Amino acid sequence: MKFVFAPDSFKGTLSSEQQIGILKQKAQEIFPEAETVGVPIADGGEGTMRAIWNTAGGKLKKCRVTGPLGAAVEAEYLILDEDRVFIEMAQASGITLIPYKSGNAGKTTSYGTGELIRNALEAGYRKITVSIGGSATNDGGAGMLAALGVEFYSKDGERFIPVGETLGNIEKIDCSGILSEMRNASFCVMCDVTNPLLGIQGATYVFGPQKGASDRDLEILERGMVHYAEKIEVLCGRKVSEIPGAGAAGGMGAALLAFCNARLQSGIQTVLEMVDFETMIGDADLIITGEGRIDGQSVCGKVLDGIGTCGKKKGIPVLALAGAMGEGAKAVYDCGIDSIMTTQNSPMCLEEALKQAEMLYADAAERLFRILRAGITINKKNIQ
Amino acid sequence: MKFVFAPDSFKGTLSSEQQIGILKQKAQEIFPEAETVGVPIADGGEGTMRAIWNTAGGKLKKCRVTGPLGAAVEAEYLILDEDRVFIEMAQASGITLIPYKSGNAGKTTSYGTGELIRNALEAGYRKITVSIGGSATNDGGAGMLAALGVEFYSKDGERFIPVGETLGNIEKIDCSGILSEMRNASFCVMCDVTNPLLGIQGATYVFGPQKGASDRDLEILERGMVHYAEKIEVLCGRKVSEIPGAGAAGGMGAALLAFCNARLQSGIQTVLEMVDFETMIGDADLIITGEGRIDGQSVCGKVLDGIGTCGKKKGIPVLALAGAMGEGAKAVYDCGIDSIMTTQNSPMCLEEALKQAEMLYADAAERLFRILRAGITINKKNIQ
Repeated sequence: MKFVFAPDSFKGTLSSEQQIGILKQKAQEIFPEAETVGVPIADGGEGTMRAIWNTAGGKLKKCRVTGPLGAAVEAEYLILDEDRVFIEMAQASGITLIPYKSGNAGKTTSYGTGELIRNALEAGYRKITVSIGGSATNDGGAGMLAALGVEFYSKDGERFIPVGETLGNIEKIDCSGILSEMRNASFCVMCDVTNPLLGIQGATYVFGPQKGASDRDLEILERGMVHYAEKIEVLCGRKVSEIPGAGAAGGMGAALLAFCNARLQSGIQTVLEMVDFETMIGDADLIITGEGRIDGQSVCGKVLDGIGTCGKKKGIPVLALAGAMGEGAKAVYDCGIDSIMTTQNSPMCLEEALKQAEMLYADAAERLFRILRAGITINKKNIQ
Repeated sequence: MKFVFAPDSFKGTLSSEQQIGILKQKAQEIFPEAETVGVPIADGGEGTMRAIWNTAGGKLKKCRVTGPLGAAVEAEYLILDEDRVFIEMAQASGITLIPYKSGNAGKTTSYGTGELIRNALEAGYRKITVSIGGSATNDGGAGMLAALGVEFYSKDGERFIPVGETLGNIEKIDCSGILSEMRNASFCVMCDVTNPLLGIQGATYVFGPQKGASDRDLEILERGMVHYAEKIEVLCGRKVSEIPGAGAAGGMGAALLAFCNARLQSGIQTVLEMVDFETMIGDADLIITGEGRIDGQSVCGKVLDGIGTCGKKKGIPVLALAGAMGEGAKAVYDCGIDSIMTTQNSPMCLEEALKQAEMLYADAAERLFRILRAGITINKKNIQ
């Protein structure tokens, strides 16, 4: 008997790894004969690469690259096989690499992420997956493009590397010097947001404030981004700015779409591909997934949807162990989740539930395995 | 496939019948092929007889008897077969038959319950089960004894029927006129309390206040009960007052022990015998029980203990669907309960949980059956 545990983290309480540890221990108690496999599911932010490395293995490559505000940072990317690498933008251009400061959103660069990509391309890798969550930038991915050989010129003919607040100064974009390795490379972008590049739902207005943009900054940044969008659209002949996800990571989505012909893919789909989840569950009898709170938003490309659909395809039962259920939670039954167990075991407030998260999770995991054992007993009796 | 549903009521929210209705509906949705049987588990108070009648069948016999304060009441007892009857004290001498009034505890009589017993004995029944929960009396069962032919005399040689406040007037008890049918009758008393007859943990001090005894009443009642205990112990040659349960139903326990040689048995054990639970679950694949709150007190002769033990004896999985778990709840795993599902599905206060009880119960029942179905799938796969 083989169980696969693939939980998302419970934001603010239990990491995927903690949950897997508890599930393994409780499974061992109730089903001593069962083989258990853990797959921590990361959501595309900081730590995603390490989570994939833990499951899929591979080699980490260290690089010294340009940080979000120019100072060098040590970053890593993951070499999965002779052709594939996984690059995490947060490693080179992440919001946690610099202190929060008003005004930052206009000054940060994605150049370091471009250097990671360049390093991988020059080393011969051609299948590039980029996780763009947790970025500090609002430069429309111009920094990354510059690192890959795209040249930006101002009205005065001066070459420069645009940041958010100087996107409006771009007069000409020259792609002739772009890294030749780009030609036969394929890019996949791990992205769960559907924001367009511009407007009230766009990169700047939605994500700018958390990157240090004041109301006045937002206006300047948006004006620059509009100008930048026009320039790249003329150059590429494609209106990428309206594609859902173009506004991800301060416009990084748009740059990857326009210049790298990238395919945007949900985080869970990407993780499942990276770790070859389908092969992993081939001989599994049960999958347990879960997230902190399941509600109507838990479908449509989210963790439970991805894992449930994968399990259903193979005829494997998939259960979700969750901190809570909200309105519309039952929608997950339609994407392959067979049932939901919640960790609450008595009336309590959210604060109490969070404080006791680990104990409640362990208790619920034990009760879940015990119910499954009862289900197995039912069937044994009926088959005899 | 056969499922047996035997839940206790959730005090203040869902009756056993309501729970059974929901369980049947949800079982039908997830396991359309399953046969389902409901056994409402009553706790020995008002309604116990009707619950047993619903499951075990039998014939209800109407009698006009003396109510707790003397006025006649319509009461019923249940004829189970040619030898057995079930008598519910609350039908004739119940607290809900009279309005609450200070002073009542000293004036109420168990005479009507004695009349029910007499009626059954005279009709030829010899196996008498008496459920003594929910009584209005503190007369030490003297009223019942009088109805069965026991005579009580005062110092002046006057015959009277003692109530709580006149127990102290008993000078002589004469059993010579006791109903001859008593000789070959056997009595079983359904009783979940373990209080002795006298003292701070006894009938008067523990249950008197809820029957309308003031602090001053309690003193008088206790003095009378002490006197009464001496009289019956001299007469019977047995110190029944210290037997756990002697203090049940205002001393009814002591009278049944002393004069009827009754066997005291837990409520759940009695109900399971009455409905012939063991035979009923003979071909069952699963039992679902439950109560409003499971904690360390849920073992030792309580509902979950009785049903779990019964299921374990037959090798049938037993699951509990509960409103909440408290400290020590896991103790029920040791008395045959395989696992616990709780109805809470997110952090919420008790008030909210009670308000949504029915919806939460239905949702949890569905999730429970879905997990069981997953367990069955696991096993099918392993057997193929």
